[in-house]
Amino acid sequence: MDQRTSPIRLRVQRVRDALARLGLDAVLVPSADPHLSEYLPERWQGREWLSGFTGSMGTLVVTTERAALFADSRYWVQAEAELAGTDIELVRIPTGAASHHIDWIVANVPRGGALAVDGHVLGLAASHALRDALAHAGIAFRTDVDVLDSAWPDRPGLPDAPVYEHQPPFATQARAARLQQVRDAFAAHGATHHFVSTVDDVAWILNLRGADVDYNPVFLAHLLIDQNAATLFVAEGKVPAALADALRADGVALGPYAEAGPALAALPAGAALLVDPRRVTLGLREHVGAAVRVVEAINPSTLLKSRKSAAEAAHVRHAMAEDGAAMCEFYAWFEQALADPARKEPITEITIDERLTAARARRPGFVGLSFPTIAGFNANGAMPHYRATAASHATLEGHGLLLIDSGAQYLGGTTDITRVWPIGTVTADQRRDYTLVLKGTMALSRTRFPRGTLSPMLDAIARAPLWVHGLDYGHGTGHGVGYFLNVHEGPQSISKAVPDANMAMQPGMITSIEPGLYRPGQWGIRIENLVLNVPCPTPEVSSEFGEFLEFETLTLCPIDTRCIEPSLLRPDEVAWLNGYHATVRERLSPLVSGDALAWLLQRTEAI
Amino acid sequence: MDQRTSPIRLRVQRVRDALARLGLDAVLVPSADPHLSEYLPERWQGREWLSGFTGSMGTLVVTTERAALFADSRYWVQAEAELAGTDIELVRIPTGAASHHIDWIVANVPRGGALAVDGHVLGLAASHALRDALAHAGIAFRTDVDVLDSAWPDRPGLPDAPVYEHQPPFATQARAARLQQVRDAFAAHGATHHFVSTVDDVAWILNLRGADVDYNPVFLAHLLIDQNAATLFVAEGKVPAALADALRADGVALGPYAEAGPALAALPAGAALLVDPRRVTLGLREHVGAAVRVVEAINPSTLLKSRKSAAEAAHVRHAMAEDGAAMCEFYAWFEQALADPARKEPITEITIDERLTAARARRPGFVGLSFPTIAGFNANGAMPHYRATAASHATLEGHGLLLIDSGAQYLGGTTDITRVWPIGTVTADQRRDYTLVLKGTMALSRTRFPRGTLSPMLDAIARAPLWVHGLDYGHGTGHGVGYFLNVHEGPQSISKAVPDANMAMQPGMITSIEPGLYRPGQWGIRIENLVLNVPCPTPEVSSEFGEFLEFETLTLCPIDTRCIEPSLLRPDEVAWLNGYHATVRERLSPLVSGDALAWLLQRTEAI
Repeated sequence: MDQRTSPIRLRVQRVRDALARLGLDAVLVPSADPHLSEYLPERWQGREWLSGFTGSMGTLVVTTERAALFADSRYWVQAEAELAGTDIELVRIPTGAASHHIDWIVANVPRGGALAVDGHVLGLAASHALRDALAHAGIAFRTDVDVLDSAWPDRPGLPDAPVYEHQPPFATQARAARLQQVRDAFAAHGATHHFVSTVDDVAWILNLRGADVDYNPVFLAHLLIDQNAATLFVAEGKVPAALADALRADGVALGPYAEAGPALAALPAGAALLVDPRRVTLGLREHVGAAVRVVEAINPSTLLKSRKSAAEAAHVRHAMAEDGAAMCEFYAWFEQALADPARKEPITEITIDERLTAARARRPGFVGLSFPTIAGFNANGAMPHYRATAASHATLEGHGLLLIDSGAQYLGGTTDITRVWPIGTVTADQRRDYTLVLKGTMALSRTRFPRGTLSPMLDAIARAPLWVHGLDYGHGTGHGVGYFLNVHEGPQSISKAVPDANMAMQPGMITSIEPGLYRPGQWGIRIENLVLNVPCPTPEVSSEFGEFLEFETLTLCPIDTRCIEPSLLRPDEVAWLNGYHATVRERLSPLVSGDALAWLLQRTEAI
Repeated sequence: MDQRTSPIRLRVQRVRDALARLGLDAVLVPSADPHLSEYLPERWQGREWLSGFTGSMGTLVVTTERAALFADSRYWVQAEAELAGTDIELVRIPTGAASHHIDWIVANVPRGGALAVDGHVLGLAASHALRDALAHAGIAFRTDVDVLDSAWPDRPGLPDAPVYEHQPPFATQARAARLQQVRDAFAAHGATHHFVSTVDDVAWILNLRGADVDYNPVFLAHLLIDQNAATLFVAEGKVPAALADALRADGVALGPYAEAGPALAALPAGAALLVDPRRVTLGLREHVGAAVRVVEAINPSTLLKSRKSAAEAAHVRHAMAEDGAAMCEFYAWFEQALADPARKEPITEITIDERLTAARARRPGFVGLSFPTIAGFNANGAMPHYRATAASHATLEGHGLLLIDSGAQYLGGTTDITRVWPIGTVTADQRRDYTLVLKGTMALSRTRFPRGTLSPMLDAIARAPLWVHGLDYGHGTGHGVGYFLNVHEGPQSISKAVPDANMAMQPGMITSIEPGLYRPGQWGIRIENLVLNVPCPTPEVSSEFGEFLEFETLTLCPIDTRCIEPSLLRPDEVAWLNGYHATVRERLSPLVSGDALAWLLQRTEAI
């Protein structure tokens, strides 16, 4: 493509024209929406529209002279490719870092200049550091203008998918009970009102689901709750009449989506409003008048939602078995097709996505994928967030490792699994890497730990087997997972990041364990299971040294044993793996037949 | 003792009389001196004098009505015993917690009241939280009065031990070179001056040692450095004339100890002074005038001192061998004496201390102990900071476990070692506990990790083998160790505490690895070695994933194998232990003979 007519260059120029019109020197475009979602409705994919970078996380800054995209190591290869031919620089930041773009702005915007960011998509907590740094550097901070609006002529509107009810038996607690739990919690903080912007919190509290965001069964809405009533601010026409009646019966009124801010502005004097500074935008917070006392605390629903009930856990176990059965069907087809000498059509990373999605879609309770399938062969697998496209993908031929990271939404739970499969002959180096990653997955899956243990201590247990060989991976070890909700769900995580106490592991939480190893240009490995946090059984573990927790592995799918270098496994590790495979065989056998059953039996044989 | 005439009650009454005279409502007595030392000269052992609690850490608050001592789990048993018969309450706080006494003060001192703390022993960083909380509670904060002074008639004066030079070959770097390193470092922070209060920093910078504090070869002094000169503020008569001349030749003048504050007050306008808020008192900081810019940063010498040079590490290896030889001589005597049917004198925890100290004192380079020997039999071993006294100690008879934690100062290094020895018959439960602790010690000793890894991640690796069995210990896993300096030396540590980047492990650091397990009233186990941090050897570990570090175990002394439950050890653990014992045998054999050699050979046999 002629670089002068690159659409990205033209878009950046339009934004610079807008900056000039508005008397601004720079604009910051975060990856965010008014609900601080991780996955964004198209309307708020301005960073992608403006830069061409399609990764799920990244911050863009455009000044009158320069433009820079800030992304962590998961995205470097991808960003470099996607930014080629633009004048946008890639700034490589450490995973979890959140201040590099601020330093860059201070260095590249003159004292006396002005930076704009749309306050409606800027997190309140994140805004503090930015505001302080800009004030210190003498740069004006404008949050009342959306520069993209005037530079993006065909900007998509609000999504209009209908809202629906998450029904029993999968919804295991009545809406009224959830509202009461939330009310009790914010009252305990001394608050009279509570405002919720995060869409998974809104969905959880009200037992509602939607389809406004790809892969996450959520809908755009804000929720304002007091001790007697609640108002759901949602675009007109999205809530069917019968559902609106049901909501009204539980004391939940509907209000126009755009009225959330004015409703905050209209709170009575003397009200005490609980908001979560990490889960509400600056723009909404600024509506709150001075006569209202603001209580800052984590959303009560974020904590409540993270701890799945016994009934929810039971549904998740079923969903995991269905998901595992789909994997068996897919892999049985895949291995046969690959081995078929008469095969005409090549098998590509795209084919894999299609076939695997189709296998899942046949399972009861399936709603959709929980994130875009990552099927990466060899070098593509070395990009942790790789996604094959029609224009660019690999064909499965020759030798190497195939990494598949995929998951689905079922009415009874959300799945997320990564497996690595040998294609042709696997080298000794590949087997070593695979086995060391597997040791990390097993080490953390088997650990026990005192309640309240913070995440870096758990993270270390997964990394230690790799560290011994001088190996490591650049991403966290695990993320929380929702219950037929977002596949990335807080507050807990397992990572090196210095945590707060809200992020500690609690019984009922579902979390991924997914150590990896990436050899850029060669191959990538990641072995991921979801685990449920449970109390350790007594009397096996006494209470003498406090309460101890452990993990129940939820994911049910064979872990390839042909890639293992046996000399690197200890007998206790072999025993764990054989035990896991015995469970997988027992739980999945009733759900599959024919080739899929044969494949399951073969791939769950003890080593 | 008649409680009405308890000396503690009388002292508390004298302090309350002083509070009344001074118009105060409460006094806070921290465990601290003007240098924020861990081990205190007698003059500043006011908390012990006033409460009777002899533990090394603890904070006392006395109001007109109540008195409370705040101590963590290491001291609970001891504090309960020592506070019995006083009216001082024990407040049990979590290890590492630093704010419980502030909450207590706010709850127990009336709004409008006044709390005093001697500003000369209050850390600057610690003062901020206290000042804020008191201001918020409407309590006046007086730091200009030392309440103890008027209530403690026979308060000891300043220690007067002479200062001496740490000489080559053990001092491996000239004083002028150290001063230059420090000057370069504070200049890099934009500072023109640097003030050092911590006595081990002063000793390290100037290659000086002293004997003002038990067990730590340091002396009380402050040091003020600019780019051309330095002044050592030290009590008159402590520095011999020849040493004063040598210091003068390196540009270091002497000043009276009490003149440190006035010298800070006399800094020229425009000066920029680097001070470490965690390593200087509020009282000294308050001398600095408004025309001086204060740069807050960690003392450069704290970082420099923590990274031992190759020459220092070589001396430490020799000191460790001497220390190990002393252990062999002691244990050979101990086991024979214990087994001797004709033995007349009982062997007690006190005897052990005497004999072990005597064995160390015979080794070349020995200067003194590095901390009071902990010899705890059975239940006494369950108190991590137990110390036998003439009035209260156990006799070694019957069966059980003997824990000995001891160490020494040598001209070429500081040692600290804990071993546990079986007495008579050891139970299966004791063997299990012992083996699990040993697994923790081995796991961390063998680990590798990326440079910059923060301490909770390392801490987890030592705890994981205990966690699997629902076991844990209440103290940190390791502390930094000086080079013929303090046995507890920062900035690094290995603990659960959320750390800052200065606390990460760096090559050259010497740190203890000492997991433990304590069954109150029954037995205690701790297995401790000192380790040197070193880069991982290449090509065994490539640099592809960044720089990796590992530990060289420095401590040389058998780890008892009779207490091991073999079924709990993996083959790789047995191999590590046998390898360690082969090294111990090889390194110590040339230094011992007769019974000690025979004992060494027996106790280093492979299992």
